[in-house]
Amino acid sequence: MRCEIISVGTELLMGQITNTNARDIARELFSLGIGVYYQTVVGDNEKRLAEVFNQALKRAELIILTGGLGPTDDDLTRETVAKVLALPLEKNRVWEQRLQEFFSRFKRPMAEINLRQAMVPRGGKILLNDRGTAPGIFLEEKGKIIVLLPGPPRELLPMFKEQVIPLLREKLQEKGNLALLQSKVLRIIGLGESAMAEMIRPLLEKQDNPTIAPLAKGAEVHLRLTARGSSDREVEALLASKAEEIKKVLGDYIYGEDEEELEFAVARLLWQKGKTIALAESCSGGLLCHRLTNIPDSSLYLLAGLVTYSNEAKINILGVDPAIIAKVGAVSTEVAEAMATGVRRLCRADIGVGITGVAGPGGGTPQKPVGLTYIALEAEDFKLCHRYEFWGSRLDIKERASQSALHLLRLYLMEKLKKME
Amino acid sequence: MRCEIISVGTELLMGQITNTNARDIARELFSLGIGVYYQTVVGDNEKRLAEVFNQALKRAELIILTGGLGPTDDDLTRETVAKVLALPLEKNRVWEQRLQEFFSRFKRPMAEINLRQAMVPRGGKILLNDRGTAPGIFLEEKGKIIVLLPGPPRELLPMFKEQVIPLLREKLQEKGNLALLQSKVLRIIGLGESAMAEMIRPLLEKQDNPTIAPLAKGAEVHLRLTARGSSDREVEALLASKAEEIKKVLGDYIYGEDEEELEFAVARLLWQKGKTIALAESCSGGLLCHRLTNIPDSSLYLLAGLVTYSNEAKINILGVDPAIIAKVGAVSTEVAEAMATGVRRLCRADIGVGITGVAGPGGGTPQKPVGLTYIALEAEDFKLCHRYEFWGSRLDIKERASQSALHLLRLYLMEKLKKME
Repeated sequence: MRCEIISVGTELLMGQITNTNARDIARELFSLGIGVYYQTVVGDNEKRLAEVFNQALKRAELIILTGGLGPTDDDLTRETVAKVLALPLEKNRVWEQRLQEFFSRFKRPMAEINLRQAMVPRGGKILLNDRGTAPGIFLEEKGKIIVLLPGPPRELLPMFKEQVIPLLREKLQEKGNLALLQSKVLRIIGLGESAMAEMIRPLLEKQDNPTIAPLAKGAEVHLRLTARGSSDREVEALLASKAEEIKKVLGDYIYGEDEEELEFAVARLLWQKGKTIALAESCSGGLLCHRLTNIPDSSLYLLAGLVTYSNEAKINILGVDPAIIAKVGAVSTEVAEAMATGVRRLCRADIGVGITGVAGPGGGTPQKPVGLTYIALEAEDFKLCHRYEFWGSRLDIKERASQSALHLLRLYLMEKLKKME
Repeated sequence: MRCEIISVGTELLMGQITNTNARDIARELFSLGIGVYYQTVVGDNEKRLAEVFNQALKRAELIILTGGLGPTDDDLTRETVAKVLALPLEKNRVWEQRLQEFFSRFKRPMAEINLRQAMVPRGGKILLNDRGTAPGIFLEEKGKIIVLLPGPPRELLPMFKEQVIPLLREKLQEKGNLALLQSKVLRIIGLGESAMAEMIRPLLEKQDNPTIAPLAKGAEVHLRLTARGSSDREVEALLASKAEEIKKVLGDYIYGEDEEELEFAVARLLWQKGKTIALAESCSGGLLCHRLTNIPDSSLYLLAGLVTYSNEAKINILGVDPAIIAKVGAVSTEVAEAMATGVRRLCRADIGVGITGVAGPGGGTPQKPVGLTYIALEAEDFKLCHRYEFWGSRLDIKERASQSALHLLRLYLMEKLKKME
């Protein structure tokens, strides 16, 4: 099945936003063996949109349009598609009611123009949207499948994965055309891309099905395995056995799979070992706590995360000795350790973490440059402080600090730290 | 001058990489008043690339092709463009020499296929590349300007800015067509997209220069004004006067401009008023603190942000009365207020913020569903607690909680809260 993706929006055309939707849709279609042959971006202009859509009807069997489903006058996708296909727009009662409920729930008046979002070309099905007011539309007409999706990625992506992919899968099965492709990503920390490639060179060289693609991602390396086959079972077995082979070589450098961020690996270990944790952050500004609390049920092991930004907070809340701050400064091994000790004691946690550093852009000195960071870990049987010199923007430094703290925590929880010291 | 951008590469089409080049090129062209009317992505396939390029020749005066200039067999852009334009490829002596120097510098043998990169369609100029082996090509043919650029962004972007933009500027000046364009974004909070559109309907209806485009962005609405003119000064004056007109209608709903996030508006107000702040977060998990500490020098007014996730932390650190938690539960007006009071007292801050809620996905009950959140604000002369029912994923709820807290803080600091209650 040939697919064309049409992204509608002047803001895309002008480069104000990045077309991540086309990328994400193409990636998902890949798993169904559907090839994207063209991606087109066109502005909020009826004539040009009609022209592009007409052309897509000639060269693709599946046409996915994103954007232009909003309530305002420059949102033209719904109307233009209906016009080109010569289909009348009909009011969808279900969605009309949803819109009314939505506005009354938030006690906001519904403007008349919002009702445009309940209009559907005749024969089209609506795709539910629980994150916005525009439903998607799934339409079969003249032997083509036409899908309209709202532009905001947080609305589009779940709708596409949860509603469109299963419908497409059904259609492919009906036609006997289902060639499945599936990917698994192995996430690696503590190894550079080329060092990792050296370790698994024989596997990389004789790759076939699954294929193996390395990719550097910030402070991590990812390995993407892609298998093809005629059933889910076959594809999954291929992926699982190749992942096992790789794990035999890379071992604990692999911390997770697919969408699992490093905080998930740490959370899982805390959960498994039944350990509680408390954080004392300074330069990372709460980002470590934010990342750990993104995980459901983190309240079970994360007792508190204290961002003691000022010296007074470090002294009064965590009990850091003011004499130490006066002597060696707030950015120091001693203060990182005292923060870890203090927060652990205050919260009666098994593990305490202390992070102090210079996030910049100001505040650096030749002795303590922007990016200098100390991360301390304390537990009953254990104490450690590492020194780092991170680089990049303020946010980069916050990210690297939180990533390094998670890396240390993972190693500690796996009881690998003493060996590696 | 109408432009079309053609991005060549199967990896783009399959969604393995994001098309940032098209975005960055469009953004740069915008400032010259060159409108991008279409962006097309096509794979490494000669037939389809020729078809797409032929079509672009019909509908654009400036055609920019990115990618497909590498040395390998699947790099087809140079050859296909020459073929469609019926121009012979000629060896560029300058680049041939550069390639030879390059390979001998790195002591690597130059494969014969690398010489393909020195081939240029007759009449074309090369664009120098000091970060890779593929030069760009600038070509004028049949009244069209055709630009070929290498795919890797770190090669493409400097080449485009430093070499292509000046050439295009020259061409526009020759034709007396240099029209400068500039944008300004007004950021709005506390109003939905359609409610805002209603308020400024007369301005939206008679828009011309500047144009005005509304865009919903999560919990915010953005208005993008775009003005054109023949001098920077003229364009800036147009933008400033239209922004003033809009501000007269939308007033304090506008919290910032361009790239300024809501945390910047709050930080600026704290700074102006000389107020210090301390945060006590629960369900937002430190995200509010993370956002505020993203701003340089936030250590001047942000004393601490305590994520008191467990009841014990709320009791022991903030001094929340355990009897209150036992009676009304941790997610309640009373506890939010006690958190705000507690953290304010502990840190001796001017303003205390308390946030407690159910971030989900678990932990909801019919009385206290996922998304229920209380946000309290306390200052010497002021006390308030708002109740919210947010929806979406755990991260959505954290984002909405932090956004709402910033919104309340902004209104308080502007002394608008009492009036609006």
